[in-house]
Amino acid sequence: MHLSDITHPNQLHGLSIRQLEQIARQIRDKHLQTVAASGGHLGPGLGVVELTLGLYQTLDLDRDKVIWDVGHQAYPHKLITGRYDKFSTLRQKDGIAGYLKRGESNFDHFGAGHASTSISAALGMALARDMKGEKFKVAAVIGDGALTGGMALEAINHAGHLPNTKLLVILNDNEMSISPNVGAIPRYLNKMRLSPPMQFLSDNFEEQFKQIPFVGESLSPELGRIKEGMKRLAVPKVGAVVEELGFTYMGPVDGHNLEELITTFGQAHEIDGPVLVHVVTTKGKGYEIAEKDKVGYHAQSPFNLTTGKAIPSSKPKPPKYSKVFAHTLVKLAEQNPKIIGITAAMATGTGLDKLQAKLPQQYIDVGIAEQHAVTLAAGLACEGMRPVAAIYSTFLQRAYDQIIHDVCIQNLPVFFCLDRAGIVGADGPTHQGMYDISYLRCIPNMVLMAPKDEAEMQRMVVTGVNHTTGPIAMRFPRGNGYGVPLMEEGWETIEIGKGEILRNGDDLLIVAYGTMVHPGVQVAEILREHGIEATVINARFAKPLDTELILPLAEKIGRVVTLEEGSVIGGFGSGLAEALLDNDILVPVKRIGIPDVLVDHAQPNESKATLGLTTPAIAERILQAFFRQQVSAVVS
Amino acid sequence: MHLSDITHPNQLHGLSIRQLEQIARQIRDKHLQTVAASGGHLGPGLGVVELTLGLYQTLDLDRDKVIWDVGHQAYPHKLITGRYDKFSTLRQKDGIAGYLKRGESNFDHFGAGHASTSISAALGMALARDMKGEKFKVAAVIGDGALTGGMALEAINHAGHLPNTKLLVILNDNEMSISPNVGAIPRYLNKMRLSPPMQFLSDNFEEQFKQIPFVGESLSPELGRIKEGMKRLAVPKVGAVVEELGFTYMGPVDGHNLEELITTFGQAHEIDGPVLVHVVTTKGKGYEIAEKDKVGYHAQSPFNLTTGKAIPSSKPKPPKYSKVFAHTLVKLAEQNPKIIGITAAMATGTGLDKLQAKLPQQYIDVGIAEQHAVTLAAGLACEGMRPVAAIYSTFLQRAYDQIIHDVCIQNLPVFFCLDRAGIVGADGPTHQGMYDISYLRCIPNMVLMAPKDEAEMQRMVVTGVNHTTGPIAMRFPRGNGYGVPLMEEGWETIEIGKGEILRNGDDLLIVAYGTMVHPGVQVAEILREHGIEATVINARFAKPLDTELILPLAEKIGRVVTLEEGSVIGGFGSGLAEALLDNDILVPVKRIGIPDVLVDHAQPNESKATLGLTTPAIAERILQAFFRQQVSAVVS
Repeated sequence: MHLSDITHPNQLHGLSIRQLEQIARQIRDKHLQTVAASGGHLGPGLGVVELTLGLYQTLDLDRDKVIWDVGHQAYPHKLITGRYDKFSTLRQKDGIAGYLKRGESNFDHFGAGHASTSISAALGMALARDMKGEKFKVAAVIGDGALTGGMALEAINHAGHLPNTKLLVILNDNEMSISPNVGAIPRYLNKMRLSPPMQFLSDNFEEQFKQIPFVGESLSPELGRIKEGMKRLAVPKVGAVVEELGFTYMGPVDGHNLEELITTFGQAHEIDGPVLVHVVTTKGKGYEIAEKDKVGYHAQSPFNLTTGKAIPSSKPKPPKYSKVFAHTLVKLAEQNPKIIGITAAMATGTGLDKLQAKLPQQYIDVGIAEQHAVTLAAGLACEGMRPVAAIYSTFLQRAYDQIIHDVCIQNLPVFFCLDRAGIVGADGPTHQGMYDISYLRCIPNMVLMAPKDEAEMQRMVVTGVNHTTGPIAMRFPRGNGYGVPLMEEGWETIEIGKGEILRNGDDLLIVAYGTMVHPGVQVAEILREHGIEATVINARFAKPLDTELILPLAEKIGRVVTLEEGSVIGGFGSGLAEALLDNDILVPVKRIGIPDVLVDHAQPNESKATLGLTTPAIAERILQAFFRQQVSAVVS
Repeated sequence: MHLSDITHPNQLHGLSIRQLEQIARQIRDKHLQTVAASGGHLGPGLGVVELTLGLYQTLDLDRDKVIWDVGHQAYPHKLITGRYDKFSTLRQKDGIAGYLKRGESNFDHFGAGHASTSISAALGMALARDMKGEKFKVAAVIGDGALTGGMALEAINHAGHLPNTKLLVILNDNEMSISPNVGAIPRYLNKMRLSPPMQFLSDNFEEQFKQIPFVGESLSPELGRIKEGMKRLAVPKVGAVVEELGFTYMGPVDGHNLEELITTFGQAHEIDGPVLVHVVTTKGKGYEIAEKDKVGYHAQSPFNLTTGKAIPSSKPKPPKYSKVFAHTLVKLAEQNPKIIGITAAMATGTGLDKLQAKLPQQYIDVGIAEQHAVTLAAGLACEGMRPVAAIYSTFLQRAYDQIIHDVCIQNLPVFFCLDRAGIVGADGPTHQGMYDISYLRCIPNMVLMAPKDEAEMQRMVVTGVNHTTGPIAMRFPRGNGYGVPLMEEGWETIEIGKGEILRNGDDLLIVAYGTMVHPGVQVAEILREHGIEATVINARFAKPLDTELILPLAEKIGRVVTLEEGSVIGGFGSGLAEALLDNDILVPVKRIGIPDVLVDHAQPNESKATLGLTTPAIAERILQAFFRQQVSAVVS
């Protein structure tokens, strides 16, 4: 049987270990080829090939449900649940999603994208099952990194309290989140991995056993089962913490040994109540280059399979925003030892690995723990430090109460740097940074800013670091800057709440925020072709808004367009509309941004086209709204 | 020395155990008298009197910092840090806050109100201390209930990973959150409390030891130290989980034995790295009535000290919203076994204790774990159940990402019931339910509704339960309804997105949401006295807005006022302003709600007066805005 013949995971049931190993190789090949061609997550999926196959051989997937945490480890799952043929469309518009998605397959029982949700969801399903008197099995597969997230621990606390609720939690322990793990829990797992019983059993057990006189030789056919039994015996010592929390602990199990996995999962299914099976896997397994560089090959842009090198883009690109952010922060931190960069397990993504390398004593990685990261920052701020919390827009949602309760109510000077704000592209709806303006704008004491390009971002980094009277947040997009000239030092701060005029015109006022400023200028150029002259303002601040600059112009010009890369509900444009109404200025306002829809995975420019956020589309929308002209030529 | 003489906690340093015990009695007296007179938290403070005194005797409070989790256990702290004289103003306008507040005292190092934040904040301060090369001690005092909150576990995971960061965590273990605790962690703590060593040592140790021939008698002066030593010996077994997570574990300690507390804290201060001292306390200690009813006396409205009975209000009050909510939900749940009520440790506050009593199999308390509560609800919804997540507006902030990522992106039918939405009164800024409209409105798929009174709430409970196509949230206020007639069954649903006209008039359109609907009608009556006739709409839904009803009226009447008990930034009124602008209707809109400020503790009507939200104040604001008339008579 070839992988391409598997359209339902129950087809795995009859297969021998040898046949499963063949399928495993085919999954790895397909996985590698696809990600090498189109980019995506690599290490997580390669690490769980045997785990997936072993687990699915012990389940009836017509009834039983597997909940994959994060979802980026579910590519093998996708390949054996009817998506082999379409797999080459991975992370592309209208193609297979890079994470799990309920709409995509009946086997995707719970969507994901963010970490640490699987046990809660699985427990909800298990409780519903028992309430309904049904009998299916529910398994959550969660990484050791995700296990440090507070909500996973909340779920364990709850599940461990329910001895009659059958629930299988599979700990996919690869010793990593995206970066090496942080915290006491991972260290404890490490201790379990290295504990004598497993060492002994894994390496020398068979040989030693065979040498026992009279016994070893005669029992050697049973060696596999005896070995399993011995491991189980070792359990209470190894899994003490897990057992104390009400779970039956099984493991550690070699996550690349199908026989061992199948035996263990089979035994786990016999146990009532919550069970944790500790599976030790190697991230990137089977692709040597990825095994050696687990951080680098967690996810990849298209690369050459033989060399592992990224395929260079046809022309050199301007630096990424993250890189400019990190570079600037490091420069400032060198001069100011009070600056402390904080990341929640995203050292490379945020660029803070540069700070770690240069100034390790000014760098804190808290693990996947955004809530703790923000309140820790508040604590640092109380002591006069300058905490810089670098957290993606989408992940900062995890710390919303901490922003309100611990930072803003106390008016503490924490500098939030929201990377990946706006349309994020291939990661899809779970990762779109589209809510932050709305959810932060309503909090008292908060200052919100966004740079028009990477050079202005440098100035805003200085501005944020120097803003010591309260909290301040800067949002910036995923991806590359414009290639504008950067400075190596001597950046000037920007006055809080002050925008700038980029262009003058009497027909229309365009007020743009962050990433939409340069497009706003382009839109103005398009409009000029239609005889319309627009003033363009770079707002810089969504809060406080530069009403002194904007309102008189709005009143004078009489037509306003706001541009933002965020939800139009309660966002930047709404803020300007509020200010106009509060000041009795009645002018038409066209708010252009991300509408009230989920934004699917696609290239950012594809998403923007769908949402009407390309410059020609914006120009047309403005013409339609204010000037009632058709501009078919422009839209083409 | 009398308690009233203590203006600085360092004054405790010279005192003997006997003197401290006297102070303890005086603290309890003052605490009891004050809360009996003005209401407030009772059980938590009474439980930590000796813990506070013992800890503070071992610290230099000019340098060292104690971070109290939640803050409702910090009344003894307040009484010995210069607030004895003002203590009778507890929870009253301009008086002492019911929680901790940085502005109130130099000894309040970190404000609180919500649970589980203290370890993160304390760790931030400890890391800052070490970065600055300073030497003070930092202690976090956290309850066993708060310890089940995910962010506390995130903080422990981080702190346990930092063997060189001196940090004292004091676990105030009273076997309760507000209600009895939920979860495997509390169960484990219970096991530790009941473990043989402590039992043995606490009860019989001294007698037994003295009876050892030749030894007991001669060593009896050393008995105290020997006892301590023996307990320490017992530690590894008892505190295994804590030790595995990188903390030194000490305890359990009798939280009402000052000698034992002082000795233990003294020893804890000698240890480098993170230490957890497990203190066993009795909630309500010293007031027998509270010791017996720990749930009922967690917090209290004014009561008679001798009988413990609440002082009845002068006239009978209409039922509380919570009570009507719970009553209605129970009725519906009796008919529909798929309805599952979920609370995060607020069984009594939300009224779900009624569901627990009647239909325990349809009730889930997850402990202080809002994140898990919401994703668990999502899991239940996947299986066709009707999860009703009853979480206060302010606490739902804890689950913001789960609402977006697990519920709304997947469009799962979870019914969120947000109690305490709007001005909450004496609990102050940490508890104001003022952000929910703004933070929920920007999420796709979400439906938002708010009833005008308790009878409409009954209909909305049915509406929410019957809305099976996606998520829906209902907000309702703290406190009592209007006393409108209620139904025992047969409630009609309300069509999603449909408001109603309550009153007609051509001069002004008032569009009110939730609690502001009846005031809106009153405002209209006041305006009539000024010759102004207003149409009043009960919007019912903030999303989707009933644009069909509202927009034509807005256009026709030409003056719009929106009323809401929530932030005016991105809130209900902004939504209406957005709709008007999107539909090219240019009319003046006056958005009245909670302005962009923190709202301090006070009676709700006092807060509303300060914020200009009383009906006369609203009427005057409208007259000023639209009719340029002074109405000094009205404002009086």
